[in-house]
This record gives sequence, C-alpha cells and structure tokens, in this order.
Amino acid sequence: MQAEIITIGDELLIGQTIDTNSAWIGERLSLAGIKVVQVRSIPDDPDRIQQALRDLMPATRLVLITGGLGPTNDDITRNTLCTYFGDELVLNQEVLDQLSLFFEKRGRPMNEHNRAQAMVPSRCKVLPNALGTAPGMWFEEDGKVVVSMPGVPYEMKAIMTDHVLPRLSGRSNGYHILHKHIHTFGIPESELMVKIADWEAQLPAPMKLAYLPSPGMVKLRITVESTGDRALLLAGVEEAVKELQGLIPEYIVGYDDDNLEHGIGRMLLDAGQTLAVAESCTGGFLAHRITSVSVSSAYLKGGVVAYANEIKATLLGVKESTLEEHGAVSGEVVKEMVEGTLQATGADWAIATSGVAGPAGGSEEKPVGTVWIAVGNKEQIVVSHHLFGNDRMANIQRSTNTALKMLRKELLKLFVD
Amino acid sequence: MQAEIITIGDELLIGQTIDTNSAWIGERLSLAGIKVVQVRSIPDDPDRIQQALRDLMPATRLVLITGGLGPTNDDITRNTLCTYFGDELVLNQEVLDQLSLFFEKRGRPMNEHNRAQAMVPSRCKVLPNALGTAPGMWFEEDGKVVVSMPGVPYEMKAIMTDHVLPRLSGRSNGYHILHKHIHTFGIPESELMVKIADWEAQLPAPMKLAYLPSPGMVKLRITVESTGDRALLLAGVEEAVKELQGLIPEYIVGYDDDNLEHGIGRMLLDAGQTLAVAESCTGGFLAHRITSVSVSSAYLKGGVVAYANEIKATLLGVKESTLEEHGAVSGEVVKEMVEGTLQATGADWAIATSGVAGPAGGSEEKPVGTVWIAVGNKEQIVVSHHLFGNDRMANIQRSTNTALKMLRKELLKLFVD
Repeated sequence: MQAEIITIGDELLIGQTIDTNSAWIGERLSLAGIKVVQVRSIPDDPDRIQQALRDLMPATRLVLITGGLGPTNDDITRNTLCTYFGDELVLNQEVLDQLSLFFEKRGRPMNEHNRAQAMVPSRCKVLPNALGTAPGMWFEEDGKVVVSMPGVPYEMKAIMTDHVLPRLSGRSNGYHILHKHIHTFGIPESELMVKIADWEAQLPAPMKLAYLPSPGMVKLRITVESTGDRALLLAGVEEAVKELQGLIPEYIVGYDDDNLEHGIGRMLLDAGQTLAVAESCTGGFLAHRITSVSVSSAYLKGGVVAYANEIKATLLGVKESTLEEHGAVSGEVVKEMVEGTLQATGADWAIATSGVAGPAGGSEEKPVGTVWIAVGNKEQIVVSHHLFGNDRMANIQRSTNTALKMLRKELLKLFVD
Repeated sequence: MQAEIITIGDELLIGQTIDTNSAWIGERLSLAGIKVVQVRSIPDDPDRIQQALRDLMPATRLVLITGGLGPTNDDITRNTLCTYFGDELVLNQEVLDQLSLFFEKRGRPMNEHNRAQAMVPSRCKVLPNALGTAPGMWFEEDGKVVVSMPGVPYEMKAIMTDHVLPRLSGRSNGYHILHKHIHTFGIPESELMVKIADWEAQLPAPMKLAYLPSPGMVKLRITVESTGDRALLLAGVEEAVKELQGLIPEYIVGYDDDNLEHGIGRMLLDAGQTLAVAESCTGGFLAHRITSVSVSSAYLKGGVVAYANEIKATLLGVKESTLEEHGAVSGEVVKEMVEGTLQATGADWAIATSGVAGPAGGSEEKPVGTVWIAVGNKEQIVVSHHLFGNDRMANIQRSTNTALKMLRKELLKLFVD
C-alpha cells in the first residue's frame, strides 16, 4: 500500500517550524510495509486543503494529515474536512467526557473553545487523544482512508501508536519494506562510491543503495521493497552488509540506530568503564549527545563546560602557564583538560574539546573553525587538530562527531586481542 | 510572487532525514516578499520529479528544488531536469575548474564521478557551489524560474545566499510579507485565546494571528501580507504588539529571534554579570542552548554536567548527607548545586537541574518526569518542583525551557526600580 502525508500550517512554509512529523510517520509506515510516496506541506487555508485532497484522492488509498486541529481561530482543518466529505459536525459525548477529565486532572477550567473540540464530523471514527484536547479523526469511504491528527508531535505520535498503526496493520498485503543503515566516517562520498562500486553493482535485484552525506559522515542505506518471506529478505541484506564490512571495515562506525553515541555506550557498558567530558567549543552539546542515550547514567560520570579560562584552571587543573603559552585553543590545553577531567571525576575515559566555533573570535593564527580535541585514559591521550568551516552550529556538530569517533576508535582497542 | 519548494530524496519519506531545507528557504523567501504556498517532498524517482514539475508549472512562477545532485548513482535530479527541459548535458569548463580547485585545496584526487559533475544542461545558468562539488542550476523560460540546488544544507544555504536571493531581489513587485513572533510562557493556548480575544478581533484587516503551542510555551505570530509602505506596515504591527504587551505582560518572554537564551544573554551583558550552570537531568542541553548564542562566551563562565552523585559532591560541594537524606532529585540538592556552582566558578548567577528524565529510573515517590530546578545568586536562590511527562527528550527540553524562564524572571528584577 502507498500513502501520502499532508502537513498543515503556515508556520511550516515561512520557516517558523521544521516539520518533524512527516519523517516520524514515514518511518513508522515504512516499518508496517506502507510506502510514503509524497509529503506535502500546505498553509492553514481551506481551499489549499481541499485542493490537495482532490489532487491525491483518485490515486491514493491512504492519506495522513497533521495540523490545524487546535482550539484557536487559525485551526480550520476539522471544518474543512467536514465540508470536503459533505458531513456535519455533531457533539461526541465520549470526546466531551475525555475533555472534562483532561481539564479536571490538570485543575484547569474548561472553556467554550475547548468544549467546541468535542464537535466532530458525524461519519468519522474518533481517535482519542490522551495527551491533548484535539481528537484524531479516521474517515473511510470506498476503501480509502483519510486520517486527521493534531500537529503537536507528542500528541500525534500517541494517536499514531495507539490507534492508527493498529488499524492499519494487516493492510500491507505481505509487502515488506526493509531498510539497513550503515554509518561510515572519514571517507568522502565519491571515494566511497569507487571503493564499493563492484559490491554495489552485484547487489541482488530488490536491493537499492543510497548515499547520505553529512558533515564528516556518509550514511549508506540498503532498501528492499518486496513481497515474500521477510526472514529470507533480511538474511539477504545481512549477507550484503557482511560483504561490505569486509570491504571497508576501517570506515564503518555503526549500523541503523546504533549511532556513535549508542555504540560508545554499549562498549563502555560491556567493558564496565566510565566516561567524563570537558567541553569548551562544543559548549554542552557533547554531553547532550551522550546523555540522549537513556542508559547513559550507567557510564557517564558527568562533565565540565569550561567556557572561561578560569574554569579550565580551577575545575580542571589546566595550568595558567599552559594557557598563557599556548592559548586556550591548543593541543596542550585539551591534553591537560583530559588529565584534569580524569582526576576530578575519577572516570576511566575523558574527552576534551577547545576551538573557535565562530562567528567571532578568530585570528590569523587560529581562524574560525580551528578545533583541538583530546581523548584518553590514564595510560594514553590522543590529540587531534582540525580546521572546520565558518558556521557556528556546524562547527559544534562536527567537533562533537569527531570527538565521539575518536573515543570510539580508542574503545575498539579494548575489544581486540 | 508565489513559490513552490520541492525537496527530493527517499530519505525524507522513510524518516531517515528530517527536511530542514524547506523551512530555511521559506524563511528567506518570506523576508524577500515571496510567499511559499507549498512544499513537496518526493522520492529520487525521475517519474515523480517530472510529475511534480508538470503539476506545478502551469500556476507557479518560481520552483526551488533541493537534493539529488551528488556524484553517486542514486542522484538523478540533474539528468531528470535536463530531460524535462528537452536540453542536453554539456561540459562546463568553469565548473570543472572550480572542481579541480576544490580537490586541490583538500589534497584529494578527483575521480571520474566528480568530473562528471561538470556536465550541466546547456541552457541553464550555473550557480557555483563554493562548499561542495555539485553546482546549482537556474532554468528560466517564459518568465518562469526553476532552481535546482544540492540537498546538503550548508551548500544549499551558500548557493541561496550568494546567487539565488540576489537574482530574485526586485521580483516581489513591492509586495511585503512581515512576521512578528511573540513568545509566551506559562499559559495554555485556549486560555490565552480568551484573554486576548478582544485584541485579536480588533486587529486591522491585513494582520493575521496564529497560535503555535509547544511544551510549556505558545508562540503567537502576527503576519501582514500587503503592498504599500513597508515602514507604515511595520509601525502598525508594533502598535498591535504594544497593546498585547499591555494586556499580558506576565506571559511574554521574548520577541522574534529573541528567544529565552537570547533575552537572557542580552540582560546579562547589559548588567555586566556572569552565569554558570549545573546540570543533572538536562545533561548538557542547558549549556548547549546558552552557548548556541554566539556572544555567550562573554557571560557564560561554564558549567558542570553532574550525572553521577560523586560529581555533585566533588565538583559542586553538595553534601553527602543531603544526597543521602533527600536523594539526588530534590530541592535541597539543586539548591546546594547552585551554591556550589557559584562558589566553584565565581559566576554571579547559577542554574541547577536534577530530575528523572526517563524512560527508566522512576519510583513511586519520584516518577519519571519529576524535575527540580534552582536558580539564584549569592543573595537568593529560587527552587521549583515539576512533574513533566514520560518522554525523555521532551523532559530534557521542558526542564531547559523552565530553567531559562526562571533565570529570566530573576534577571528582569535587575531592570526594575
């Protein structure tokens, strides 16, 4: 089965909000064997919404819509869908009861605008919203399904998980969509392409390969879309991945959700070792990436964001003389930051970053994008120097990726005889 | 002028990549008086690309396309556009020279796939890509413009900024699109709506109001789309905002890009005071938000990510007895974390967070979502207790927003007699 997604909201078209809903929905549908063939973002405009539905409906069996269901005047999706389906709004007692409970639990009074959210098209199936006030709606006519959900991501996700995906299960007719992601680091896209050209050319027919470059990394994705035995298809993909692993072992840093921070976490857990970080230019982002893994409290002792030089000195024991002689952005300082972090936290491993993230603060000797990173333990500290670009956020991200990659390389040695 | 955006890439439809390009482009076009009326995300599929162009071209004068221009086999946008326009690929010497320079600078050999990127449709205007290997392309026929750019965000942004926006300037025919964003905090959408209903009803005709809820916050957006004197339109918006400010002063925390972290930064700079943070449950995200402001090094001393209890004790001087008696997630501990941070960093202000971000670690007494936050200086420390939800990333975000809001409230007192 194929599906289309419509995300509604002026904020999506003027850059106020980045649409994260369609990516999440696309991933979940893909896992359910349903292929998303297009995403459209359109304004809060009844004509545009109706036009989009008229465009899509002849060829599409499933349309998922997010946005425009709130209680305020700019939320017009519900009325527009009601008009589109020639239906009328009726009071749904079940929704009204849920709304009353929602407000009671929060100790807030319910006003007329909230109460109006219990008015829904008579022929739709209501999908309860446990986390908010706007219910989802499921319209089904002539074997075609249109689902309308709120645009607030966590409300949409709960409605998808609790109601939409269960109702869609079994509708894929044995069609499978499998994705395998291979994360590579340290080789440009076009060189990677040459290195794995023969392997790519010999991939069996249902497998497609895609390249996804990002600062410092290229993700490869193998996709299989096919009916047939799911286990057999999966085995074929794993076979191809094994061959690739043999071809470029030095560049592969992880698979699927197993990104750098997950991989590092697993290795630290396996080794029973701990980590701490000392950040200057990454300003907390490195710790944030590590703590985005839910079990990270088992191996992350903590860290220091050492923005001011005096913090580098007082909390991490970086010597004043080193700061004066080499400057805060230097190999010597990141090395001492690692030593000080190991000392201060008792962690087995430490990472330190110091650089000029920009846009200001650059000099001829140390232009914006200059970054020093050190990673090590009590035995050994590895120091590296980089010259990234001019964009502050990209520099923070690249420094973080590179630091995690360096730690990964060191941790790998624990698992090699 | 109206525009449509097409983003190309299988990865956008299966949830591997979130499309951030269209939001950025939408914002820039909006500033240039060009209104984006639709964004479509479609797969790397020649038929779908041609179909999208055939759908759009009759009614649209400007189409901006991103993605599918790389050197690998899955990049098919350039060939597809060439076919669509009935054009042929020719070697562009200027692009080849730029490519040679690009590889020379990086000390990397250029291979045949890179060289092939200098083959471009004969009738397009080439838009040089200073940061990558795939040039942008500008097609113009019968007063209609189609622009193709790479999907890598920083390459696209550079081509937009250096080439596309300058070429589009002056094409808006005196049409202005103005947005004013008002950030509110601490009042639900439906209550806010009631509070400002009269003000909203009396907004002059060209002004439209939108509500954008997110965890703990509602952004209001006033939009004006009109020809006429830009300064006069702006003055009208500012007048309306001033009235709103008089109506709900306690809920407004900032305007436009002046989000919480910018606002706090400006106040700290104005007051000549400094800040440090101590994070447990926010795990570095609070420091990251603060350091995302480029001048933050002028007022942020640094911070400590105190994940393990021993770090709270050794680096921040939280007493063992306090940790034992009240637990790490407690008002007493965040208060001592603030005191310890002020002491350790010499900062004028400190923020501390401690909570159960989830999904594991909850107990009956302190369920997932329990968060304590403290903010203060040497004179006074304010402590607050919260019960957020079950989602780890949402808890980290809400804790961070709430902590910044608490600091903002304290800093505001510096500027009141």
